[in-house]
Amino acid sequence: MNNPQLNKNGELQHLLTTEGLPARIMRDILDRAATFLDTTDGHEIKKVPLLHGKSVFNIFFENSTRTRTTFEIAAKRLSADVVNLNIGSSSTSKGETLLDTVDNLCAMHADMFVVRHAQSGAAHLIARHVAPDIHVVNAGDGRHAHPTQALLDMFTIRHYKKEFHNLRVAIVGDVLHSRVARSQIHALTTLGVPEVRVIAPKTLLPTMVENLGVQVYHDMAQGLKDVDVVLMLRLQNERMQGAALPSAQEYFKNYGLTEEKLAHAKDDAIVMHPGPMNRGVEIDSRVADGPRSVILSQVTFGIAVRMAVMSILAGGKQ
Amino acid sequence: MNNPQLNKNGELQHLLTTEGLPARIMRDILDRAATFLDTTDGHEIKKVPLLHGKSVFNIFFENSTRTRTTFEIAAKRLSADVVNLNIGSSSTSKGETLLDTVDNLCAMHADMFVVRHAQSGAAHLIARHVAPDIHVVNAGDGRHAHPTQALLDMFTIRHYKKEFHNLRVAIVGDVLHSRVARSQIHALTTLGVPEVRVIAPKTLLPTMVENLGVQVYHDMAQGLKDVDVVLMLRLQNERMQGAALPSAQEYFKNYGLTEEKLAHAKDDAIVMHPGPMNRGVEIDSRVADGPRSVILSQVTFGIAVRMAVMSILAGGKQ
Amino acid sequence: MNNPQLNKNGELQHLLTTEGLPARIMRDILDRAATFLDTTDGHEIKKVPLLHGKSVFNIFFENSTRTRTTFEIAAKRLSADVVNLNIGSSSTSKGETLLDTVDNLCAMHADMFVVRHAQSGAAHLIARHVAPDIHVVNAGDGRHAHPTQALLDMFTIRHYKKEFHNLRVAIVGDVLHSRVARSQIHALTTLGVPEVRVIAPKTLLPTMVENLGVQVYHDMAQGLKDVDVVLMLRLQNERMQGAALPSAQEYFKNYGLTEEKLAHAKDDAIVMHPGPMNRGVEIDSRVADGPRSVILSQVTFGIAVRMAVMSILAGGKQ
Repeated sequence: MNNPQLNKNGELQHLLTTEGLPARIMRDILDRAATFLDTTDGHEIKKVPLLHGKSVFNIFFENSTRTRTTFEIAAKRLSADVVNLNIGSSSTSKGETLLDTVDNLCAMHADMFVVRHAQSGAAHLIARHVAPDIHVVNAGDGRHAHPTQALLDMFTIRHYKKEFHNLRVAIVGDVLHSRVARSQIHALTTLGVPEVRVIAPKTLLPTMVENLGVQVYHDMAQGLKDVDVVLMLRLQNERMQGAALPSAQEYFKNYGLTEEKLAHAKDDAIVMHPGPMNRGVEIDSRVADGPRSVILSQVTFGIAVRMAVMSILAGGKQ
Repeated sequence: MNNPQLNKNGELQHLLTTEGLPARIMRDILDRAATFLDTTDGHEIKKVPLLHGKSVFNIFFENSTRTRTTFEIAAKRLSADVVNLNIGSSSTSKGETLLDTVDNLCAMHADMFVVRHAQSGAAHLIARHVAPDIHVVNAGDGRHAHPTQALLDMFTIRHYKKEFHNLRVAIVGDVLHSRVARSQIHALTTLGVPEVRVIAPKTLLPTMVENLGVQVYHDMAQGLKDVDVVLMLRLQNERMQGAALPSAQEYFKNYGLTEEKLAHAKDDAIVMHPGPMNRGVEIDSRVADGPRSVILSQVTFGIAVRMAVMSILAGGKQ
Repeated sequence: MNNPQLNKNGELQHLLTTEGLPARIMRDILDRAATFLDTTDGHEIKKVPLLHGKSVFNIFFENSTRTRTTFEIAAKRLSADVVNLNIGSSSTSKGETLLDTVDNLCAMHADMFVVRHAQSGAAHLIARHVAPDIHVVNAGDGRHAHPTQALLDMFTIRHYKKEFHNLRVAIVGDVLHSRVARSQIHALTTLGVPEVRVIAPKTLLPTMVENLGVQVYHDMAQGLKDVDVVLMLRLQNERMQGAALPSAQEYFKNYGLTEEKLAHAKDDAIVMHPGPMNRGVEIDSRVADGPRSVILSQVTFGIAVRMAVMSILAGGKQ
């Protein structure tokens, strides 16, 4: 089957999902990302001219200041021109179709689109539509995929654990509604993690989730037992008010990550979260701010990983 | 009469309207625009340092993501610093007058204002008010003028038809409420187009429109007969719900551009539209996406034309 | 007591308030600002590479297009990458805490935060929290402080009056709710102005305002007598509709600055206002636009002063 993310030479053409993304491409992205981080100080990210003269359009049909900012910073670190478009308040409300909007932006000399959309598949639709010299990065589509988040998580895991082939990883929380979880599972299994667990109440798990190659747990003590990595998911506010959960307090009692529950994991386990965190709901502050949390490193690595994706797509040689 | 767009040497000082704009200035803009387009690939627009160190303020009192984006891209291609101001949500709501807002922005070291305003004459008012080293570009004022749109249309026509003096051009649709139509008519007649037609129902034509030097048609078959260029206008949603029109369906039946109606035009006629399009209202998708449509070329040329206007106004020598 | 604005070498680490800011630091800022203004033409502000490769985040928890724009322009004149964040509509509404938001932005490689917040002390809170290589500029916090406004006012006074030690300065209007007034009073007294007056009705004065080292007047004729500088304050609309004032007309009659009232000041007195002005409420148009008004110079100098603050904080050597 044709992979819409790769060109005919097998190179990355768009980044739409981690599902079906070859391991060699993932590793290339992680390796490239490492080059953007100053080895003496993980915080410093040098400004490089790789995308000088290129135009990156952040087209956000769904509001997300945080994600938009990470892509904006990454593009500016690469010396690209960045244009932010909050399309919710724009032409589509004037009756124009999504693809007419995209055609117009292409005609304005876009080199790359970073797309966020509430509908699953929106980034794929755009990628299929644009000319071959234009690249699309999926910054989150519905419940479907959020590949740069998953790749920065992989970068973080590799940074702290060096290898994937000997790890036990647990994903905890609202897997059902989470594009992050879906993208993490595909990335982890592709990169060779032998044991991926999901821990959640039944109401927050997709049916047939086992088919994704994961082991299912409903109990934190069992699910966290001897894991190397704990990937927490954000519990969205609307879930807490809905029928899927009895209450935020009840959820925290059963699935909130506390030091007590974390004690079941390995001593050197790391804790990750895609943010923004609901402290006291899915995670306790002592864990979030504790020695095993690498949550802020994820954010820094996220800039480097987005720079890597963009520069591989549009930047040509380094 | 003094032309507020020209300085005392007859050079372009502001771009406010195509009415009264000398043909030599229009031709200069079109010629300069051509230099920004890569001749081997019409899509590529090189980044040039002509406005490096200059500050362009997009001040939009009326929301228009699309137009704002084209000016932002054009200014960034010229290496200007661009500041976007959505004034609707800003100081004017704090009781400050329009001219106080403008004075403040001038004092912040603006070199150029790109102004969009719902009131006709707003850009003129600002141009009369600012210091001589500050330039104003009208990006649409009320029903009055939209000169960069008209100039990019002229560029597109010249690109495909080479000359103006032997053309028959039809403007179709809501001429009454259209600043685009007004600016197109002035540009076409100034550049020597011998026959400009408008085609619309009486309710969508200004009184005395013939005084602008156009021929009036109410029937598409007659109006499109043997034309070289068809300039479609957008039918704004509020018109469709108002008293001026029976219904969008009825409008499409009579004035919507279909392949059948387009057959009355010359075989090599081109079809243009300023966007965003209402497919199935003023234009049929088979025409919009068909071989005679040059609608997306208009968008690309629009970047080059806006770069030309800005660089002639503020960029000095090339 | 430890000064949170200075590092252990006594250099500026954050700019949070003019209260307790040493006179030598204030003078450094004013001197540095002068270097950014072209001496042959006060309007021109050259683009310099002092912050090339640095990232400035404008994080505005309270909307202010005008103040945000001045910082954006200043940062771009310094060649920084600027990211604008309107946090009101972002993560904090997703339940994230202020400090989690800040931590995330730090992890995105911020070099400097420009912070506007409706709560007094917000900038201090952030400054205490961030790593030592990150700098915070307070762009207005609640009723507490607005130090860059006060410093640009000091620059303007020094520009026109040369010295501080022989001046009589009056601050007129709503001192009670004004962070600008508070910051002005601290700056003026620190820089050695021997006589600072406040003129306001009792309902618009803080209790114990005399403790700040000012003389209190309730009558304009007496308060403006022989002053060198008149600092007008903005009367916010909500005050005019509240219980603190009988009406805008009544306020203008008693405290609005007219030519008649200004006649009590020295002949060469200058008039200043932080903007946006309410013409006909706190200031008459003949004064605002008259020969003694330096209101627009304040805006221009404000860019230079903000460039000075930013370059001293993050730009290293000049």
